Amino acid sequence: MSQPAHNNVLAICGGVGGAKLALGLARILSPEQLTIVVNTGDDFEHLGLTICPDLDTVTYTLAGLSNPEMGWGRRNESWRCLEALEELGGPTWFRLGDTDIAIHMARRALLDEGRTLAEATAQITHRLEISHKIVPMSNEAVRTIIDTDDGELSFQQYFVREQCRPVVRRIRFEGGDSAKPSPEFEQALNDPDLSAILICPSNPFVSVAPILALPGVENRLRGHDAPVIAVSPIIAGEAIKGPTAKMMQEMGLELSALGVYQHYGDLLNGFILDQLDHGLVGKSANSNRFHSCNTVMKSLDDRMLLARECLQFADTLGVQI
Amino acid sequence: MSQPAHNNVLAICGGVGGAKLALGLARILSPEQLTIVVNTGDDFEHLGLTICPDLDTVTYTLAGLSNPEMGWGRRNESWRCLEALEELGGPTWFRLGDTDIAIHMARRALLDEGRTLAEATAQITHRLEISHKIVPMSNEAVRTIIDTDDGELSFQQYFVREQCRPVVRRIRFEGGDSAKPSPEFEQALNDPDLSAILICPSNPFVSVAPILALPGVENRLRGHDAPVIAVSPIIAGEAIKGPTAKMMQEMGLELSALGVYQHYGDLLNGFILDQLDHGLVGKSANSNRFHSCNTVMKSLDDRMLLARECLQFADTLGVQI
Repeated sequence: MSQPAHNNVLAICGGVGGAKLALGLARILSPEQLTIVVNTGDDFEHLGLTICPDLDTVTYTLAGLSNPEMGWGRRNESWRCLEALEELGGPTWFRLGDTDIAIHMARRALLDEGRTLAEATAQITHRLEISHKIVPMSNEAVRTIIDTDDGELSFQQYFVREQCRPVVRRIRFEGGDSAKPSPEFEQALNDPDLSAILICPSNPFVSVAPILALPGVENRLRGHDAPVIAVSPIIAGEAIKGPTAKMMQEMGLELSALGVYQHYGDLLNGFILDQLDHGLVGKSANSNRFHSCNTVMKSLDDRMLLARECLQFADTLGVQI
Repeated sequence: MSQPAHNNVLAICGGVGGAKLALGLARILSPEQLTIVVNTGDDFEHLGLTICPDLDTVTYTLAGLSNPEMGWGRRNESWRCLEALEELGGPTWFRLGDTDIAIHMARRALLDEGRTLAEATAQITHRLEISHKIVPMSNEAVRTIIDTDDGELSFQQYFVREQCRPVVRRIRFEGGDSAKPSPEFEQALNDPDLSAILICPSNPFVSVAPILALPGVENRLRGHDAPVIAVSPIIAGEAIKGPTAKMMQEMGLELSALGVYQHYGDLLNGFILDQLDHGLVGKSANSNRFHSCNTVMKSLDDRMLLARECLQFADTLGVQI
């Protein structure tokens, strides 16, 4: 009997864009075949809660609870708490919906009981009947700090409160030097049946970089038998959502899918860029490592098709032994 | 020109019953004339928030936001967060309404900024356009611990989670030995124009006792020029709300207004009991210190009338110099 072409897949994932591909992967792979490792550099302590925007976006997306209009938070959301908080003069720059607050409270309760972030996430996703593994990159706090023209800002201050207006000079990951990958992330990295490591179309600088910055992770990806493939978050010189394009400009990178490819450098065995950027393939010395297809994920079908493209492309690159 | 008969009043107050009288006082006294000192022994840390049930009940009552049906929380409340929290398997025994959560968040934000609980309370009540002073008994944590047949319970575990079912053996106030009265409480105690100290019809054991347990407070009341007057929370052998009667039985006290009077002992210069209990007056050796009137506060008028009765009774007792 022949082995299935694909065995297990590790997806490295940020928020919205990454969550879309993660959903596509979850719809074509069994729970045993997929580990979704999620950035926690955006996490922050706010009003007594530990808020994990990327973990929650992936969770809501896989649970079918995400809000398609807003691109974050829960669908059918209400804002009575936030309105009352505004009336009381409390901080409302981070918009907490009534039902969204519950996930932060449930996590707070689990962390206060001594559970790790990975355990808390597993319990919450189980309650939401998600069978695929959504895993924080680390159980230890890593906090993305953006050094800007306006001084150092925590990620949420930069991203939400200042709406990405300040010019980025440097990005660092507080705690990233010493935080260990979560045991579930370790397990996926050590899995002998791993056949692809997919870097989802998330912001390379603030969503993927914190995961790669964990001690040993980048080297382990580089030396891994399974091919490492990134999907470009830049399409025709623009990001579908978020500050990726603005950051690339401010950091002097070429604002194109090629700029993303160059940023990841020799970490990648393969790179998927949008069909609109197919013309860029010939411009690169490593064009045999490129694959172009539709990467705009508007429908669930788009998500599943892109997931399939990723796995088929991984097959052509082969497990490198 | 004659001085007004009443100058300044200090009200010592727990939750619901106390809040009703506090509202009556606030409607007949100017903001300068009234300080409402509120029990914080029921406060607790929950889901990252510092929840102050008595402070919030008094605040909501004076702001016209209290929920008359429930007897706690805010009117026009919704429960979407709690429902979502239940779905996630989080702790829902303490029922947090969507708009009620906001006051705990606003307080958390202010405490995290380094404000004291009194400063946070002042800011919140100001935002709700309350002009009278609502003051926590202390800025330091005092936590009521109920020693029961089921072991030691925090107050909220006993009161809400266990619904007062366990038999009370002893009550202690963790931190009460060392916590200082809040500066605003101190100021009221030191006010030379203080003409009455009113112990509101709150639970003597868990609402009033934590305030009296603060170092020096009971002695200062005892030696105060202004008369100390308590309003009985027991009417015809029953408490209007809460576990006062059950606790009195379990602690072997006479279950009547007289039992309450005996509990306070010589701390009191005067005692107000309900007209239904008028017959008890003759049974006491100190019947000249008793005043009976309607103490059931169903309407705002009832609250204001009882407030007036208290102040007039204080007048008859006179400032003791």
